[in-house]
Parts: sequence; C-alpha cells; structure tokens
Amino acid sequence: MAAPVAIVMGSQSDWPTMQCAAKVLDELGVAYDARIVSAHRTPDRLHAFGKGAAEEGFKVVIAGAGGAAHLPGMIAALTHLPVLGVPVQSKALSGLDSLLSIVQMPAGVPTGTLAIGEAGATNAGLLAASILALGDDALTQRLQDHRAAQTDKVAERPQA
Amino acid sequence: MAAPVAIVMGSQSDWPTMQCAAKVLDELGVAYDARIVSAHRTPDRLHAFGKGAAEEGFKVVIAGAGGAAHLPGMIAALTHLPVLGVPVQSKALSGLDSLLSIVQMPAGVPTGTLAIGEAGATNAGLLAASILALGDDALTQRLQDHRAAQTDKVAERPQA
Amino acid sequence: MAAPVAIVMGSQSDWPTMQCAAKVLDELGVAYDARIVSAHRTPDRLHAFGKGAAEEGFKVVIAGAGGAAHLPGMIAALTHLPVLGVPVQSKALSGLDSLLSIVQMPAGVPTGTLAIGEAGATNAGLLAASILALGDDALTQRLQDHRAAQTDKVAERPQA
Amino acid sequence: MAAPVAIVMGSQSDWPTMQCAAKVLDELGVAYDARIVSAHRTPDRLHAFGKGAAEEGFKVVIAGAGGAAHLPGMIAALTHLPVLGVPVQSKALSGLDSLLSIVQMPAGVPTGTLAIGEAGATNAGLLAASILALGDDALTQRLQDHRAAQTDKVAERPQA
Amino acid sequence: MAAPVAIVMGSQSDWPTMQCAAKVLDELGVAYDARIVSAHRTPDRLHAFGKGAAEEGFKVVIAGAGGAAHLPGMIAALTHLPVLGVPVQSKALSGLDSLLSIVQMPAGVPTGTLAIGEAGATNAGLLAASILALGDDALTQRLQDHRAAQTDKVAERPQA
Amino acid sequence: MAAPVAIVMGSQSDWPTMQCAAKVLDELGVAYDARIVSAHRTPDRLHAFGKGAAEEGFKVVIAGAGGAAHLPGMIAALTHLPVLGVPVQSKALSGLDSLLSIVQMPAGVPTGTLAIGEAGATNAGLLAASILALGDDALTQRLQDHRAAQTDKVAERPQA
Amino acid sequence: MAAPVAIVMGSQSDWPTMQCAAKVLDELGVAYDARIVSAHRTPDRLHAFGKGAAEEGFKVVIAGAGGAAHLPGMIAALTHLPVLGVPVQSKALSGLDSLLSIVQMPAGVPTGTLAIGEAGATNAGLLAASILALGDDALTQRLQDHRAAQTDKVAERPQA
Amino acid sequence: MAAPVAIVMGSQSDWPTMQCAAKVLDELGVAYDARIVSAHRTPDRLHAFGKGAAEEGFKVVIAGAGGAAHLPGMIAALTHLPVLGVPVQSKALSGLDSLLSIVQMPAGVPTGTLAIGEAGATNAGLLAASILALGDDALTQRLQDHRAAQTDKVAERPQA
Repeated sequence: MAAPVAIVMGSQSDWPTMQCAAKVLDELGVAYDARIVSAHRTPDRLHAFGKGAAEEGFKVVIAGAGGAAHLPGMIAALTHLPVLGVPVQSKALSGLDSLLSIVQMPAGVPTGTLAIGEAGATNAGLLAASILALGDDALTQRLQDHRAAQTDKVAERPQA
Repeated sequence: MAAPVAIVMGSQSDWPTMQCAAKVLDELGVAYDARIVSAHRTPDRLHAFGKGAAEEGFKVVIAGAGGAAHLPGMIAALTHLPVLGVPVQSKALSGLDSLLSIVQMPAGVPTGTLAIGEAGATNAGLLAASILALGDDALTQRLQDHRAAQTDKVAERPQA
Repeated sequence: MAAPVAIVMGSQSDWPTMQCAAKVLDELGVAYDARIVSAHRTPDRLHAFGKGAAEEGFKVVIAGAGGAAHLPGMIAALTHLPVLGVPVQSKALSGLDSLLSIVQMPAGVPTGTLAIGEAGATNAGLLAASILALGDDALTQRLQDHRAAQTDKVAERPQA
Repeated sequence: MAAPVAIVMGSQSDWPTMQCAAKVLDELGVAYDARIVSAHRTPDRLHAFGKGAAEEGFKVVIAGAGGAAHLPGMIAALTHLPVLGVPVQSKALSGLDSLLSIVQMPAGVPTGTLAIGEAGATNAGLLAASILALGDDALTQRLQDHRAAQTDKVAERPQA
Repeated sequence: MAAPVAIVMGSQSDWPTMQCAAKVLDELGVAYDARIVSAHRTPDRLHAFGKGAAEEGFKVVIAGAGGAAHLPGMIAALTHLPVLGVPVQSKALSGLDSLLSIVQMPAGVPTGTLAIGEAGATNAGLLAASILALGDDALTQRLQDHRAAQTDKVAERPQA
Repeated sequence: MAAPVAIVMGSQSDWPTMQCAAKVLDELGVAYDARIVSAHRTPDRLHAFGKGAAEEGFKVVIAGAGGAAHLPGMIAALTHLPVLGVPVQSKALSGLDSLLSIVQMPAGVPTGTLAIGEAGATNAGLLAASILALGDDALTQRLQDHRAAQTDKVAERPQA
Repeated sequence: MAAPVAIVMGSQSDWPTMQCAAKVLDELGVAYDARIVSAHRTPDRLHAFGKGAAEEGFKVVIAGAGGAAHLPGMIAALTHLPVLGVPVQSKALSGLDSLLSIVQMPAGVPTGTLAIGEAGATNAGLLAASILALGDDALTQRLQDHRAAQTDKVAERPQA
Repeated sequence: MAAPVAIVMGSQSDWPTMQCAAKVLDELGVAYDARIVSAHRTPDRLHAFGKGAAEEGFKVVIAGAGGAAHLPGMIAALTHLPVLGVPVQSKALSGLDSLLSIVQMPAGVPTGTLAIGEAGATNAGLLAASILALGDDALTQRLQDHRAAQTDKVAERPQA
C-alpha cells in the first residue's frame, strides 16, 4: 500500500531541512515517500508527480523549496490533494523570498505554509499527521500522546 | 450534526476578509460555523473554544486575525485538529505583521498559513475542503469540478 | 509567420500592466502575441505553452504575474528561449512578493527580471526588442531612434 | 513574600537572552521569579499563569519569546498587570518576526515592547524597576545611582 | 496636584494619533497633561522636560513621534521615570521607521514601545494606567471593569 | 574576432561571484571578456565602455555590482545592447540593496536582473547564451544539451 | 555670478518633491539653478554636468531621483563637490528602493542622503545652506534665524 | 587651533567603524577630534557638545551610532553646523534600524546620511573633506589627487 504522505523537495540540499518532517512522521508511525522533484530542473517530473499524486495513493503532499520556491504552488496547481509548503532558508534573504513565493498564492490554489526552515518542516509533518488523523483514531491517539509528551518535557524553570 | 469547519476571527472587522472562506465553502457544499473569538479580548473564550473544538465536532479550524495575530497559533496550541491561518491585511504594515505572527510557529505546533487577505481566506476554504475531501468522495468530485470550472474560466487572451 | 515575442500573463487583471510591453513593441514595429497562461489555474496550458514556445516560432517570452508569481520561472524551466519576467504590483505587499518570486531563481534556470509594475512591462518590451535587434539591423536602427527621441524629450529645466 | 517581577520565557533556549533581565534586577536588588511558560506547548500553564499572576503577588511581568512570539500578548490578555515583551532574536528573520508578533497588539491589550535580544532583556529589567520604583523611594535611589554609574563609565574618547 | 501622566508628541500632526491615549485615560479617570515637545525643533524644551519630568510630579511619560522618532528615547535618557513610546505612522514607510527608531534602544535606557498608530496610542494609555494602578486600588478596579466591558462587547458571531 | 559577451563588474571583490557567469559560458563554449568597470571610481571608463560596447563587437553585457549598484543601469543607459544585471550580495543588507538598485529601473532603460549572488551570475551566463543562441543553432543545441544534463543529474530521492 | 547650489532631478515628475529644496533656499536667500538631468535617459548630459559642475561655479549639488536612483551617486562619481541625495518616493516600494540606491554607496564616493520625499528635499536645502554658511557669516545668521523661527512656531500644547 | 571635524560616536564599540572616517581624514591631512558622546547614556554631554560645537571651532560633525541611533539627529537639532550621520551595523537588524533612525529626519533638521558600516564612515570623512575644501584650495587639490589615485588603482581585469 502506498505511503499516505509525499515529502518532495527541490534539491538534495533541501534534505537537511526536510528530514525534520520525515523524523516526526517516523515518530508518529506515519509512512511517507521522500523524493526530489525540481520545479525548474525537472518540470516534466513535476507535472507527472502533481498529476499522478492522488492516483499514486498519496493523501497529503509536503513540498519544500528555497528562493523563488515554486514547487509547493505548482504541485497544488496540479492536484486536488492538500499541499503543505515549507520555505527552506535561503542564503541571501534568509528564506523571506522562499516564504513569500510559497504563501502568497492567488485565490483558487492553496498551499498551507509553515515556518521557514527546520521548525516549518517538523510542523509540516505534524500538520500532515493531524489531517490524516481525521480518519484514523489510532493516529489521533498517537498525535495526542505526542502533544502530551511535548508538554511534559517543558521544565518549570530555566536551567543556568 | 455539527459543521465540519469552524471559521473563527479576532473581530468583526475581519469578517469582510473571512467571508471569502465562507463563500467558497458554500459553493462547495461544506457547512461551517463562523464565530468571533478574540485571543486578546476574550482569552477565556479562546481557551474554551480551542479545548472543545474537537468535541464540538469540528474537523478543521480556519482562523483569521491581523497585526500581532495570535489567534491561529493559540488555537493550534489547544487542539490537535488541523488549523489554517489567514493573515488579515493590517493598516500600517499591510499584513506583513499578521503573516509573520501566524506562520513563524515554533516546532511542535503547526498552523497552515495562507496568503494575506481575501485570497488567503478563499484558499483557506479550499484547503479545508481538500482536507475533508480525503474522507468524502462526493466532496472530492465537487472540488474537482470547482477546479475544472476555474480552469475553464481563464480566457485565452486578455481583453482590452 | 509567427510573432517573435510572446506576452503572457497570469490573469486578465495583469493586462493593464502588461499592455505597456505591448505598447512599446507596437512603437518599435515588433509583432507579439498576448495570451493568458495561469501557472496555477491552467497548469496544462502552462506546460504546453512552455514546451511549444520555441516551435511556435517565438524568440523571446515576456511573462508577467503577481504575488507568488511562478509563471516566468516555470516557463523558463520549460523552454530554452530567453524569458523576461515582470513583477505585477500586488495588493498587500506592493509587488515585493512578485519581485522575489520571479528574480530569486536557482542556478540553472534564468529569468531576466524587470522592475515592479508598468515601468517593468515597458522595459520588458524594450529588452525583448534589443535582443531581437541583435539579428535585425532595421530594428537596431528603430531602437536607437526610439532611444534618441526619448533623450530629446527630456527638458532642460523643470516646469512649475 | 512573593517576588514583584515574573520573568517568563517560551523555552529554555530563551534563557541566554532573558537572563540579562535577571542580571540587571539582581544589580538593582529587585527580586524576580524566572519561569518557562510556553504559549504553544503549555497553553494551560499559560492560562493559569496569566489568570493568577496578580494573585501570586507579581507586580510586573517580563515575557520573552521568539518567532511567532505569542507569550507576551497572551499574558497581557489574561492579566491587568503591566506586561513587558522581549523579542528574542530568531534564526531566519533575526527577530523581526518576534518584534512584530509582540509589538503590533490591537487596541485594548498592551505589551510594552523592548529591543530585539539581550539589550531588550536588560531594558525590560530596567523598565520593570522604574515601574516598581514609583512606589519605592529606595529603589528610585538605586535606579538613579545605577543610571549615574552608567553615565560615569562612558569614556571621553575612543580607545584604539 | 500634577497629572500623573504626561502625553508628549513631536508635533501637532501627531495629535490625531496621540489623542487615543488621552481618550482612554479619560475613560479610566486618569489625569494627564498633553504637550508638544519636538526633539529636533525644540531640543532645549526636550532637555528641560526630560530633566524635570519627575519633579513636575509625572509618574509615567507617553511619548509619540514619527519617522526618525527620537523623542521617546531621548526623554528616557533624561529621566528615570517609565517612558512608553508610540510610533506614529509615517508617510513613506508606514511607521516602520518610527517603530525601529523607538524600540531598538541600546541596553541601559528603555522605552516600552507600543504598536504603530492609533492602537499603539490607546495601548500606551492602558499600559500607563496599569502601571499607576499598582499603587491605586480604585484604578485597578476601574481597569478591570474596563477590561471586562471590552470582553463583553465582543459579539459571538460576525454580522453581515 | 571580439567575444560576444562582456562580463563587467564594479570591483575585484565581485569576481568570486561573477566568475560563475564565466564558468557557465566556458561550459557552453561562449567567449567572453571580463573587465572591471567601476561606475563610481572609474566613471570615464564606464562612459567609454557603455558608448563603445556595440562597436567593440559585444552582443550582450553582463554587469554585476553590490550595494548602491549603479553599473548595470548606467551601462544600459549608454548602449542599446541587452544588459543583464547581477546583484552581488552585500555585507549589511545581503544584496537587497543591490537587487533594488539594479532591478527598479525607470521605463525607458531596461536591465534584465538575475538573482542575488552566485546563482544570479550563473543564470546571467545562461541567459546571455540563450540570447546568443537565437542566431546560432549550434549554441542552441549545446544549451539544450546543458539543460538536459542538468535534468539528468537530479536524483530521484534524497541521500542521507 | 553662478548660483552656488545646483538642484538636479531625474525627471519632471520629481519636481513636486524637489521644489521643497528650492523653497527653503529661497527663504534663506541662497541662489540655485534647477535642472533635469536623467542618469538613464540623458547619460551624456549627466556626464557633462558632473564633470563641469565645479567649473560652472556650483559649490553644492542636490540631486533627487526615485526607484533605481543612480543620479546622486553618479554625479558624486564625476565631481569632488559635496553631493546631497534626495530619495523621491516611488510608487511600488514607497522610496525604500530610492533610499537604498542612493545611500548605500561604496567607500570612495559619498552622497549625503536625506529622508525620503518632501522632508528630505527641504532638508537637502537646509544642509546645503549650512555648508555654504561655513564661508558666509550673513548666511549663518539667516540660518540661525530660520532655526529660531522654526523653534518659536512649535506650540506648547496640541490643538484639538 | 581647533580641529575642523568632530568625529563623535555613541560608544567605544562604534570605533572600529568610525575609525575609517579618521583614517581617510588622516590621508587627506584634515584634523579631527574623536569623542564618545552617548545620546542615551550621556544626554548632558550630548546637549553640551551640540550647543557648543560651533563655538569650539568645529566646521563639520560626523556622528555614528547603531540601533535606535539618535546621536546624529540630536546633534543636528542642537547646532547649525552640517552634520553627517553614519549608521553603524547593528546585531539583529544589520543596520537597517540605524539607517532609518538617522536618515528619516523630519523637515527642518537635516543629517546627511552615509552607507551602513565602514564604507559609510570612510565616505563621511570624504564628504566632510569635500565640504571643507570649498574654502581651502590646497585641500581641494589633495581631494582631487586622492580621487585620481583611487581611479588609478582600479585594475582593468579581475585577477583569479
């Protein structure tokens, strides 16, 4: 059976960021398939991926890219599945370009955008899980446990 | 039966923006409940809403706010449901403050953020529908029809 | 014979900006074909246009879009022709999002980006003409005449 | 007797910044209680802290957080005590997101915001002391001495 | 007896903004004295005001200015009283310049900064009142009543 | 015979960026001439270069500069050849100043602007090649091969 | 005898801004010569003006331009006279592009930059006068009188 | 006899930047007096310095500061001498706060602002020299020689 989550990224260099999504999905027991799909260097692969994502059995697509980051929005244009976008931190503009390129989509084609960088990738994994959990009570429970554990780990006072 | 989508906003003044989410949900035949929940002026209402959202029967929460926009992130902290954030365009900074306040969440608590303003509200509605459609084939069909109609409406050439 | 310049734009609402490119090409006697190609609402049309642009006989593509403006970069990914990008002024962020979405392309796929708004559209027309003029002495002459006329129109002193 | 100042922060990682507030309060002989209260990971602790801050005996709350920094504003929503906000420098956007998330509060719920990072934390301590000094002549004197010592330490000329 | 709050502003043109501070102080029954003190056009008046503010009997100073807004920080340099800064919305940069000029004070001299524009002025009044309320139980009660009334005025649902 | 591409830069310190343009032109077998022309320190050299560029036999000018980057725009003012601008990453503002100084040209004098830094320089080389390829079928073929090789190098999956 | 101040601007559309410089110079009895010199449309005029400015008898040059504003810096490259730059407010980016294009000059060629828009133009006139006043006691007196009158016009209290 | 140029800075930490002004003035044979004057920590010293600068014999004041940089503007408010401002690069916001705090002065009190950081300090020295050169032919000659040497040092081609 296909993994419910696709994690796609524009290049190998995005993986250190995007593996944070993979890590949290692993923790939550959600399967995923991680691929490189470059909007600019492999536009045919992008077109094929977006068109076929639903048929491949994916339920949610997490897409990360940096700079003029077109990958999340272009996938969203090609599929009716929910697409979550992760702005990868760019060199010159620290990901502000990535963020605006992903989040400022015109009416009609949405990308649910997370924070710039690793926090955003982790949160994309969590948001994907919360979406899948709507139809999966066991996952809902694991998500709630994960949230509770996260709360428990917050110390009362700062340590010097 | 409860509506699957909650549309919450920080104040009455956000409604002209947020009703774009309502409008597209109406078009797609998705029920919603629109409420005012101010993170800052009604923090108890916020707490109660976030804590009880899942139990009320909501599946997805769309939250819109402007300026130091804490509503989407605080609801996300209180529920395991997917939360979509709409940055309402603010007066002085045109919604850049709203956007950063909503999207830059720390790892652990995600908000799927849409574009600033009306386009973002429309897209929050569409993204909510695409999430609900994962468990609703009829909605999937309506979503695909909506997308197809949107494509058909794009003229070949600009009109003077 | 095909027009050497394609002027494409993401929506009808970009035409008031993009017609400045058309206007200056008219003045220079350069034929163009103006089309609406929405990266997000008509991704198949985008794919077909980009793939076929060279074969259609176009020499230069001028592409304008606003917000998360993916049109110029996606066309550049699909053709080896020179692509010039015009950031259309957006509502909330005044075109800063459009500019960064167009100009910050990764190494490998260039878009030659012009200024935000009407000045950028005019200049895209002029730059397209200067590219075509490399193989067209008569156009070179018209371009130089246009430039000279532009210089002559600058008054010596400001008028009250 | 309770400490008059609460120093709260969103996570342990904020302590290197926030301890600058603690340090200057130590110098001025003002007691404080430093706690971790995460708006997003411990929303119940936030709610309880904000609701009970006045009853616990606090007079002023200093709250520091980074990124989508909701802690200061949410505490301000829950208490009538003066709340001072410190924007912690964030990784991608250098604290601009933290600053806007804290300072751009809507009318009705104020946070007195200080500079991004360590200077802001030090100044939050000083501002808290100046507030407490309104009802404490000895503290007023210590504050004036501190200010005078600060002035005296400024050399006449730069040293190579 | 002197008013406990000084509302100072850089020019007459700041009054439409700063009167929001006056208005909320009126509502809370807190006396104030509104003056024009231009850091740049009346530097001697600034120096005298800052030096004498405590002796005049003021407890809190609210200072508003726009552009290169030096008034709040310079008053803070001249008095040990708490100083609250209001960034007035400027013409070209919408108050971003005002905000950074007021909030980014170096360690040693704090200004508690509020939001850009009218919301910030209202909140400066509220924060001043919360500071004065630390030594005034009746004002504490009025502040709590004001807060409660504000909460009560938030409707449950948006009105079309 | 003259090289068809001029690579000019404002100072020696721009070379580490601009040599990316040289490198890709080398790969594509396009000759170039790399020169230092400082708009500010050698304005006569600038004037002479711009005026004589066409006569020297150049077809395309690639110009890179940082900060208040006037070189690309001033060359564009002096020649009818296509001018491509590369914003070199600056120290304080990371190239945002370079970008705006190059791209925001008024109607009448275009510069086709690429991304900030090395990616932009590489892309300036590619865009220059695509312009020259309009009149050179062999170069068109090499450009298509280069693009195909670039596509082939994109792995299917990220490597740990 | 030549006027000591040149007021130059990139186009007629800059005059509503730049006439503020003229107005204050009129008030101070300083002669000026106002001209249009477009860096981009009249580069030869720019070159001639910059080279000949000292010989024409000018002592100070005030230069205003908007967008990619190269005029002040290019004049500064061509003359050893002090050059003052006025960033004219631009349409899309409100003069932030103009400001950065003028102020971020590399070491070696300075432009003394004033505020964006009319305030900056007025201040360019005042700064030019203060420079000329170093060798003109009567002008120093008029400048001091102007400053004193400006101080006197500041009311004590805001008018409703 | 007094030095004609005052170089003042807000703190010792500004000296590594401001000594670039000193260095170029040394090269040009212009005497200067370098002092620390903190607008915020030594407001009386600021007041005395500004009021007495002309009487001390200074002709031009160069003032550098970072963050909420009030020093240049406040000196300009206190003297009729020309004041040149250097925005020192700040930690969080890279000097954008310093720049806006210095350059965005209201009409009536000018500061001629240079670039952020060391380039700006060097250029403040050069601009001060060009101002003094208006009444000093020997200095004019040295300035022209300095400019010529600077031009001569620009190599024709970049070195690998």
